[in-house]
Amino acid sequence: MSVDDSVSDPLAEVCVDSEQVFDGVLLKLVRDRVRLPDGKESVREYVRHPGAVVVVAVRPDARIVFERQFRYPLGRSFLELPAGKIDSGEDILDCARRELREETGYVAADWQYLGVMHPCIGYSDERIEIFLASGLSDVGHQLDDGEFLEVLSFSVAEAVAAVRDGRITDSKTITALFLALPLLS
Amino acid sequence: MSVDDSVSDPLAEVCVDSEQVFDGVLLKLVRDRVRLPDGKESVREYVRHPGAVVVVAVRPDARIVFERQFRYPLGRSFLELPAGKIDSGEDILDCARRELREETGYVAADWQYLGVMHPCIGYSDERIEIFLASGLSDVGHQLDDGEFLEVLSFSVAEAVAAVRDGRITDSKTITALFLALPLLS
Repeated sequence: MSVDDSVSDPLAEVCVDSEQVFDGVLLKLVRDRVRLPDGKESVREYVRHPGAVVVVAVRPDARIVFERQFRYPLGRSFLELPAGKIDSGEDILDCARRELREETGYVAADWQYLGVMHPCIGYSDERIEIFLASGLSDVGHQLDDGEFLEVLSFSVAEAVAAVRDGRITDSKTITALFLALPLLS
Repeated sequence: MSVDDSVSDPLAEVCVDSEQVFDGVLLKLVRDRVRLPDGKESVREYVRHPGAVVVVAVRPDARIVFERQFRYPLGRSFLELPAGKIDSGEDILDCARRELREETGYVAADWQYLGVMHPCIGYSDERIEIFLASGLSDVGHQLDDGEFLEVLSFSVAEAVAAVRDGRITDSKTITALFLALPLLS
């Protein structure tokens, strides 16, 4: 079954008209008029996002590197895997290396690409590229100005338990763990 | 460890000023000036969302109900679990029952709450409440006007394989499967 051939997809919606309705410091918002499969028109509003990476980084002691970071939209801190936005033109593996080092102070000798996820298909075009990193060495933090976070670690069993008991609710973190689990001892 | 006590959280960001910068047909966007932990100010822009539900619905033959739905922001169809936005004042279980019936034509005798996920903590306050539904009977579709989707089903093994081979990349679907798996035979 093909799920990516929108040209022949009977469910496809076709753009009639597109307008950028908000150009913020962080977010760009687009509103399109679209033609639906029944020929009627509707409106689609969504965030345009440059894409991101997330890293399952495994230390030599088999513990996974996590962060605790304050997430303003929800007004509290979250336990999450290291992640960050892709710079314009940046290779996704370079981005993963950069974000892991900047946020946690680790560099990794071994990198494996695990796939892509889409966090918010209803109103964002964001994709998040997922990597597994091992052979870690600690070379020290390089946080961006105005970035604040704590670095911690969980064993695989602790991470899975934290998903199941609701301490981890961030979807990119849970999705990346799902894909990494068969590769973790 | 507490991750939900923002009052005493050393990572907390405090609202200085808040403004709704876009009020669309579907999306509301907010821009706040915030005070960072180091006393400096920054800007946070995010989507205000009413919340949603997602349902892992298991048929009597042990197959899980999926949908294929066109997602305009990404220009293609996605395989996903039944889901939808919570109406103003609506109970989350009522919402889950309503969305399952409207989108797939199934009603369920047994409902179990599995927890909450956050799809997009960087720029949305959306939460998605996760339910497991079983004891299904098919009573026929009631799609919203302008809603188009196909209903299909996967065995548990097929669903896990589709996550691992990249046919399923929707984060709410993968997260809900992660939480439901220990409860599925």
